[in-house]
Amino acid sequence: MTNEHCDRIRLCLTELGADWAVLSGPDAVCYATGQPIPIETGPSPFTGGPALAFVGRSGGVGLVCSNVEASGPIAGVTLETYAGFSGVVTDQLANYRRAVEGMVRKLGIGGKLAVQKPSHPASITDIVPMGMSIDLHLNRARAVKTADEIAALRIAAKGASAGQNAARRLTRPGLSELEILNGIRAVIEDGAGSRCALTGEYVAGIERTSTLGNPPGARKLISGDPVICDLAPRINGYWSDSCASFCLDTATDVWLAQYRRAKETLDLAISTLRPGLSVADFDRALRAHMQGAGFSYPHHSGHGIGTSVHEWPRLVPDEPALIEKDMVLMVEPGSYLPGIGGARCEHMLRVTSTGAEMLTDFLMDPVL
Amino acid sequence: MTNEHCDRIRLCLTELGADWAVLSGPDAVCYATGQPIPIETGPSPFTGGPALAFVGRSGGVGLVCSNVEASGPIAGVTLETYAGFSGVVTDQLANYRRAVEGMVRKLGIGGKLAVQKPSHPASITDIVPMGMSIDLHLNRARAVKTADEIAALRIAAKGASAGQNAARRLTRPGLSELEILNGIRAVIEDGAGSRCALTGEYVAGIERTSTLGNPPGARKLISGDPVICDLAPRINGYWSDSCASFCLDTATDVWLAQYRRAKETLDLAISTLRPGLSVADFDRALRAHMQGAGFSYPHHSGHGIGTSVHEWPRLVPDEPALIEKDMVLMVEPGSYLPGIGGARCEHMLRVTSTGAEMLTDFLMDPVL
Repeated sequence: MTNEHCDRIRLCLTELGADWAVLSGPDAVCYATGQPIPIETGPSPFTGGPALAFVGRSGGVGLVCSNVEASGPIAGVTLETYAGFSGVVTDQLANYRRAVEGMVRKLGIGGKLAVQKPSHPASITDIVPMGMSIDLHLNRARAVKTADEIAALRIAAKGASAGQNAARRLTRPGLSELEILNGIRAVIEDGAGSRCALTGEYVAGIERTSTLGNPPGARKLISGDPVICDLAPRINGYWSDSCASFCLDTATDVWLAQYRRAKETLDLAISTLRPGLSVADFDRALRAHMQGAGFSYPHHSGHGIGTSVHEWPRLVPDEPALIEKDMVLMVEPGSYLPGIGGARCEHMLRVTSTGAEMLTDFLMDPVL
Repeated sequence: MTNEHCDRIRLCLTELGADWAVLSGPDAVCYATGQPIPIETGPSPFTGGPALAFVGRSGGVGLVCSNVEASGPIAGVTLETYAGFSGVVTDQLANYRRAVEGMVRKLGIGGKLAVQKPSHPASITDIVPMGMSIDLHLNRARAVKTADEIAALRIAAKGASAGQNAARRLTRPGLSELEILNGIRAVIEDGAGSRCALTGEYVAGIERTSTLGNPPGARKLISGDPVICDLAPRINGYWSDSCASFCLDTATDVWLAQYRRAKETLDLAISTLRPGLSVADFDRALRAHMQGAGFSYPHHSGHGIGTSVHEWPRLVPDEPALIEKDMVLMVEPGSYLPGIGGARCEHMLRVTSTGAEMLTDFLMDPVL
């Protein structure tokens, strides 16, 4: 996997006229080196700075990370670890800087650098200067997935699908959103065989589903509740995403109408997605279909996915990019009505040479 | 809470001869402004850089964060949010830089800056230069907790204790480590009323508990397994930590002997911890007590805790700092023997004017 990804990064360097890529986002480091970086508890107190990947235009791949981030040797990658965790007093920043200096010496890093501007640490700019931005080029290079990445995304998608099916089994009146979400998480992590970062939402009730951004809470479900279940687990460094919506026992006509329109709009996306279509046109068609029944959503129509849960291209009205084969895109039309509740339907789609393949697969019935 | 913390940061600035503190670690931003920053899924794709807190020596407190990180207005804090999440194509880094520029103008930030060197972003050094390091001073200022922090840590400690008690109820042969850990997490999060970042470990079996750093996995528990259950949840921005060890159904004599010695060593820590003691002497006494029975542990004896799960001082042999009243310290002696398995006992202790108060409280029986 790593070799093909580094070749793509080298193409970015050629386009930019740069000699070395210096990557500091955990998703980009995983993309370049295959090393998933732990993210679940924020920046580790046992690091001196973000893990760094180095890729040279004429060869050479390096990884600097702390002794608690490294999983072991990686074929084709020069590894430089440093004492993040230590049994004695230690200066992690000094250790980190020394490791970066060691890597620069070992690989002969120099010339023109292309870096990730949002995450490049100021602490090393005397060793690895800021340089030009690789961000846009790298985003585009990563958007089309390699065969190995599609395999990894299939595994992640199975985790999301298993979580969605578990959500239907585990949801019942009297349990809280958090109890149900943790039951779902147990199924996903047990299937993955490891703890997984998990984002998304599991919210229930008319009020909580009719606005966006409510975190899962201790509210207990009652009969008639609409539920939005959006599950995005990271498995072995690759994310998946998914959303199902349903009502407990009974649904109102208006809720059902908006649910059906969201589901139809997702089906429309699956049947019309293809290489060569512009993102803007695709986004417009989906919004228009919702609006044809009087519904709308105040968010993107979807997004790319890979080692980050949101990747370029975002499916928004002003994105002129063309859809390409082997992009993996989330599509997530929805509707959120005060007094009625919300509904959103989301699948993970691989763009094939002629259309779309669903990577997620789970039951989508509107009433549970 | 914020005012007292900012006063402490101002003392750091006075000691350093600096005019403004610029904080970029999520734990320090939470400490200065009271705003917990989401960390559970790593750096957000909807930010242009880390959230930043600004504290002026002669007044002024500012927070720059994206629209998905802000919870709303905070008394006494000038808030500058920017479009991280947007319904159209947007340049998050440009939005972030513009927000930082706006904050610099609004608060009149200038003069000598003191920054967190490991996390300061290179992307803004033309607006907010690197400056001197506030790290050591800030670590020391944060080590002694305020009354509000102790209240927050008590709540977090109750979550860890509830998790430990749940671990005893939920642990049984035939379930996997991950199934049990997610059951525990459900209890912690349901009690907290929100999702919580959770670190630590839940590992079972002779082999997996006799070495450090094994993540919880799909292995199913069997009778006779030793279990190490280390639970560290973050609740409302404040961490707790805890560790219990037990065997299923039956324990070997050697395992029991090391467990009892670890527990005795923790009891010794509770009875000897007091202001004025040096960390090195405290650490040495704990290690000596383990070694008196032929056991030892290859890690720190403990660490501070607050808005970060590991804070200064770390309890290590060469730390000369003196223990002070209202430090909150984790103490975690253990032993790990090949062929026998491991055991570790950990409580969260507040240093009182004469001794120690346990903030965590849970059953610690060696056989379940």
